[in-house]
This record gives sequence, structure tokens and C-alpha cells, in this order.
Amino acid sequence: MPVTLPDVRAAQRRIAGGVTLTPCAESIPLSEITGAQVFCKLDNFQRTGSFKERGARNALLQLPAEQKRRGVIAASAGNHALGLAYHGKLLGVPVVVVMPDYAPLIKITTCQRLGARVIVHGRDFTEARAQANALAAAERLQYVHGFDDPAIIAGQGTIGLELLKQVPNLDAILCPVGGGGLIAGISVAVKSLQPRIRLIGVESTHTANLSAALRAGKPVVTARHATLADGLATLTVGTNAFALARDRVDEVVSVSEDWIALAILRMLELEKTVVEGAGAAPLAAMMAGKLPQLAGKRVALVVGGGNIDPSILSRVIEKGLVHDGRLTRFTARISDRPGGLAELSRVIASCGASIKDIAHDRAFSGADVSAVNVLCTVETRDRGHIKALHRALRKSFKLTVER
Amino acid sequence: MPVTLPDVRAAQRRIAGGVTLTPCAESIPLSEITGAQVFCKLDNFQRTGSFKERGARNALLQLPAEQKRRGVIAASAGNHALGLAYHGKLLGVPVVVVMPDYAPLIKITTCQRLGARVIVHGRDFTEARAQANALAAAERLQYVHGFDDPAIIAGQGTIGLELLKQVPNLDAILCPVGGGGLIAGISVAVKSLQPRIRLIGVESTHTANLSAALRAGKPVVTARHATLADGLATLTVGTNAFALARDRVDEVVSVSEDWIALAILRMLELEKTVVEGAGAAPLAAMMAGKLPQLAGKRVALVVGGGNIDPSILSRVIEKGLVHDGRLTRFTARISDRPGGLAELSRVIASCGASIKDIAHDRAFSGADVSAVNVLCTVETRDRGHIKALHRALRKSFKLTVER
Repeated sequence: MPVTLPDVRAAQRRIAGGVTLTPCAESIPLSEITGAQVFCKLDNFQRTGSFKERGARNALLQLPAEQKRRGVIAASAGNHALGLAYHGKLLGVPVVVVMPDYAPLIKITTCQRLGARVIVHGRDFTEARAQANALAAAERLQYVHGFDDPAIIAGQGTIGLELLKQVPNLDAILCPVGGGGLIAGISVAVKSLQPRIRLIGVESTHTANLSAALRAGKPVVTARHATLADGLATLTVGTNAFALARDRVDEVVSVSEDWIALAILRMLELEKTVVEGAGAAPLAAMMAGKLPQLAGKRVALVVGGGNIDPSILSRVIEKGLVHDGRLTRFTARISDRPGGLAELSRVIASCGASIKDIAHDRAFSGADVSAVNVLCTVETRDRGHIKALHRALRKSFKLTVER
Repeated sequence: MPVTLPDVRAAQRRIAGGVTLTPCAESIPLSEITGAQVFCKLDNFQRTGSFKERGARNALLQLPAEQKRRGVIAASAGNHALGLAYHGKLLGVPVVVVMPDYAPLIKITTCQRLGARVIVHGRDFTEARAQANALAAAERLQYVHGFDDPAIIAGQGTIGLELLKQVPNLDAILCPVGGGGLIAGISVAVKSLQPRIRLIGVESTHTANLSAALRAGKPVVTARHATLADGLATLTVGTNAFALARDRVDEVVSVSEDWIALAILRMLELEKTVVEGAGAAPLAAMMAGKLPQLAGKRVALVVGGGNIDPSILSRVIEKGLVHDGRLTRFTARISDRPGGLAELSRVIASCGASIKDIAHDRAFSGADVSAVNVLCTVETRDRGHIKALHRALRKSFKLTVER
């Protein structure tokens, strides 16, 4: 077996002091909305915003002295790159990161600022990886795999050791799964020490790598779909990660993108913390009712990262407002004579709702040239308020509601 | 003097276990952008999202038994109401909260869920307060003032004691100021024990109560302006708070709403934490360059609360994206014949920018009927990218840029 409990314990000693011991307090509001007793392991509070630092530092510290001098390389568009860059700088190990073209500029510039040499190359991860391999050979750099290197897996497993210490009498751990390195490491720690604790993997329905591997009995390449949980969007689970996780993980559930979006909003509103899609997946699984057996149980959610693009966060919030009935959109048919819009605005205001956006559509308003369609986006208090607003409007206007 | 160091120490013992001992770790990213060594006291992690719980619990615990049975009342549209409601429920003290009409529904329903009796009354705070006074007299409820009650001030002062313990060799503390209760309490703790530490109050330019009081030599009622920092929007500083703070606070600075908005975004992006406007004011003061003397110093920012409305947060993010050059808007004049928009879109795409919103304006496009104005909102990488985009567009189109 490539990673054992002593490996994880050794990783914990090795990275202590260099990686933040993140908090894992009970969240009363999240307990209220899920019906379990919820604890959040907030690894989004690591310096570079994710748990990836654990494995990166553990791997860097175990390099032979000569390799430390020459340096390491990895292909990554995300958190692994940030973790390597940061700890490479702290430890004096040169780091090269190959990022595919689509990598967000913010991650590219952050990696550079953290001191890495960044090469932007390749239309997809496979092309970036090939470039990294070529460079590794040419410059004798050590390639550090983001989720299947045993040293990386052992490093991520330190979250498991911390959880066992921070939350007594834990019943279950919910862990996001992409390449499987995180859950593999945690599974080694937890199932060696307290096998009674259920370990549940959470995937996006758009990135269901571990379920696919479990069905096939081996890692398989899954189809790519866009996902909010970009941290989970690997092509497959790792071979080592799968070998470790397959018999140690009790269950794998998949959650839809909608639930992930809403979980991101609830973490913002209730927990006052910023999480990326992958980090919100465990809460999403509970909110979506995928795990009714956890009612009343003590459950730790592994909140792995907080690196979400602000513009995506803004869109997630708007979507969440629609879900909560705090934003509604409808088309009202009003008179095109003076006063038509004034009357519409008056009714909306009298209901205590507030117009955010409004657009007239004359050309496509049908045969009656004295009428015009107006598309309104309106802020409301909740779904009951929307119903009351619609009722009031229907007294004077023909209404078409968008769902 | 109504509040002394022993009062704050007694408050600390009294509320221990009932109020979260919030973290105050160094923030490396915030240190990088401010040039100081920055520590964030994260009281937004209190159960109800703000420091107000400290004073509320301290005040409730000191009520005579008979008054505990009868209960308390307060007028508040915000965090004081939440803190009282929550600790009233925990301690079995009935709580009545009078909220003005404009209180966000989310705060009303949260107060109710926390167990308070909520009365919505009054077009402004003064009317809500009058109603609360009337009810207090009629039902013999104790009125608990949100920022001027000595027990409240002593409770808030516990942040000062925690800071001294959590951050050795502190040079300065930056504290938001609205009614003054928080800074008054902290000033008693800090100036009694380590008078060398500079205590700096931070106001919004729209809520500059303490500066006004210092100029007048007494609390004065200031004009009301809308502010993102609604937690600071009191009409005046309290009499007790002012008496305590006036000789203990070293300096007061005011920051503009723009800087507060940008500081909220930086806390989200860099610190992965959600703060309301008042809680972001201290960081805003540093970002705005108001405190150059703190370069290289050890500075604690009191992050007092995280109760910001998600729809406001979404708007703050969008504004921040504009500031960072990640969103730009311009009007391009294109041919109204087939292909005009195709050419515009092609140029934008070839620059690597992404169109978010587009609107044609035919009627107001000037005399030339073969041309039409198109208003474009476009996602970009940074300000340099915007310049390059404008340059490329100007080769083919007449451009008007919004600032």
C-alpha cells in the first residue's frame, strides 16, 4: 500500500508549523438547516486558500537535497499550483507551474507573485501536462502530481488526524472528491484509527469520477462538463488514490450544480465564510437531502478551499436570491399611452417590492399596437411576497412569469 | 467613570463560555496589500454575526432576578437586536425588539427565529425608540441601550482584553466607530493595561459621529447619509461612550464609501471571510492610505460583524470588479447593416475579453441612419487589458468609454 497511517503521522510532524492548523468549530446555523450537528473544517483559511498546501509541503520536504536545489514542476490550473508555489518559496525550492490557457488570470498572477515560474501552455490539462513532462525531462525537475503522489496523499491525510482530535465522537466525515487524493489520505488516517466513523465522498454530478471508478473497478476517464466545483474537475481519480479509497470510503453521493450554488450562498450568509464549489459540495449533499441517515449525528464537512472568482460568486449570489424568492422576473403587458409604466411602477411599489431592472419590448408585443410588453426584474422579500405581488399585478395587467 | 478595567474584567469572566472567543490570526495577504503586519479580530464569527453579543450577554446576566423574569426591550434594526434575542433565549430572559419599518426582513425573521418578540414600528429609529420606551414603561421591561449602557460598553471591552492576549507587541488597534460603545470599551481595557498601543477609531465619512463630537466637545446629532456601513449609522455617539473614549482614543479617521466597498471585496478574496461595511472600515482606512505611520507596525483590525445582505454583497463585488479593471463599459458606434455586430464581437473576442451584456440604441444614435450605438459591458483581466481592448476597438469603431 503506498500510504499508511505512519506516513500520515510523519507528514503531520513534517508540516507542523508550516501549514495552518485550521479551525473546526460547530456551526449552529448549519446544524439548524441540515438537522445534523455540523462541524466545518475550514481549510479555505490556509494561506493560499486550500488544503493543497498540506500535500505540497509534505512532498517538497521529502525531496533529496539535490532535487530541492533543481526544483519541481507541476501542471495545474488551480490550488495545487498555488500550494506548491507558496511552499516552494518558503522552503527555497524552485517551482515551475504549467497552466493551461484557460487558467484564470488571477491564479496565474497569484502563482507568479508567490514566486513560481509560470508557463501558460496548452488548450487543456493534457496538453499542459505533456509540456510539463517535457520540461521535467529537459531540466531534470521532479514532477509533483496533484492528487496521486503518495507524499501528496499522506499530506492531505493530516486533515483526518486533525478532525479526530478536534471533534470528539464524530459519526461521519463528508469529503469532496475530484482526483481522490484528499479522501484517500483522510481514509487512511480515519479508518486506521476510528473505523466506526463513516467516510462519505461527495462529487458534483458533473465530475463523478469516484463513482465511475467504483462501478468499473478501476479509474476511468469521465466525460467533461462545466462545473462550479472546478476543484473537482479532474479527468479521473488517481490510481494510488483509488487503491486506498475504494475499500475505506463507505459511500459516495453526487450533488447537482444548483445545490452547490445554494450551499456556497449559505456558507456566505450563515457561516460568514467564502468557499469555492468543491468546498461547498459536502454542505450541498446535506441540503439536497442525500444523507437523511445523518440526522442528529455529529458530522464534519471538509471545506477544502475558498478560491472562487468574485464574478462567479456574484452570479451565485444572484441565483441564490432567485431561489430564495428575493428576486423575481415577469413580463407585464401595459398600455403604451402616457401613464402605463407609472401605473405598473405604482402597483409594484405599493406591494413593497423594488424594481431592479426594466425593459420595454414594443416590436414583439403582439398585434395590439396600443399595448407594450415590459420585462421587469424585481427585488422581493420571499416567495410569499412574490405571490402577493403577482396577485396585485394581475388585477390590472396581463402577466407572464419566468421560472 | 461609568466603566472601569475591573468592570471589563468582570464582564470577561461573566460571558466566558457563552460568547465565542474569536480568532485573531495574522493575515499575510492583508499584510502584503497594506504594508503593515495585520491581525484580524474576527467577531463576525459570533453566532449572530457580530460583537454585539458580548455586551448583550453581559447586560442580561447582571439584571436583578425579578427583571430577568419580566424581560428587556430595545429598539434596533440590526446586530444589537440579534445579540439580545439570542442571549435572551439562552438565558431565559424574554426579549422584545422594536424594529423600524426599514429593517431588512431577514433581520426581522432572524430575530423572531432566535426567540424574540419583534414589533415593527416607526419610520425611523427615533420613532421605534419612542415606541420601545412606551412599552418599557407599560410592561416594566428594562430598556437596554445598544451602545451607551455601561454593561454593554464593558462587554464590548472584552475584545480589548482578548486582543492583548492574542497579539503580543501590538502597536495599534483600528476600531470602527458608530455609537462609540465598542471603542469606549476597548479603550478602557487597552489604555489601562498597555497605554502605549495606539487606538484609532474609523468612521465612514457618512457617519462621522465621533469626529463631530470631538470637535464640539460633546455628542452632537449628525446629518444622516446612506452608508454601506449601516452598523455605524447611529445619529450620535453615546454620552457615556464619549466620556470614556474622548481622552483614550488617539486618533479618528474617516473613510469613503468607495474604500469600504473595496475593503469588503478584499476581505472576501484574500481573507475568505464575509464582513459588513462597519467591519470592513478598519481595512478600508489602511487601504485608503489614511494611516501611513502604521507601515511595518503590528496592527489589529476589529472586524466587528458579518451581517451584510447578499444582494448588497453582490453589488459590492460588481463595483469592485469595475475598480479592478475586470469589468468595463463602453459605447461603440457600428454599422446598422448585417455584420456590424459580428465585427464588433469578433474584435472583442480576439482580445480575449468576454461580453457580459449588450444593448442597441437606434433612436439616439445621431443623424447617420446607417449607424447604431451599442452599449457593451465586457469582462476583462485588468486595467491593462481594458486599454488594449479600447486600442483594438478604436481601429474600427468610434468609442465612448464610461468611467
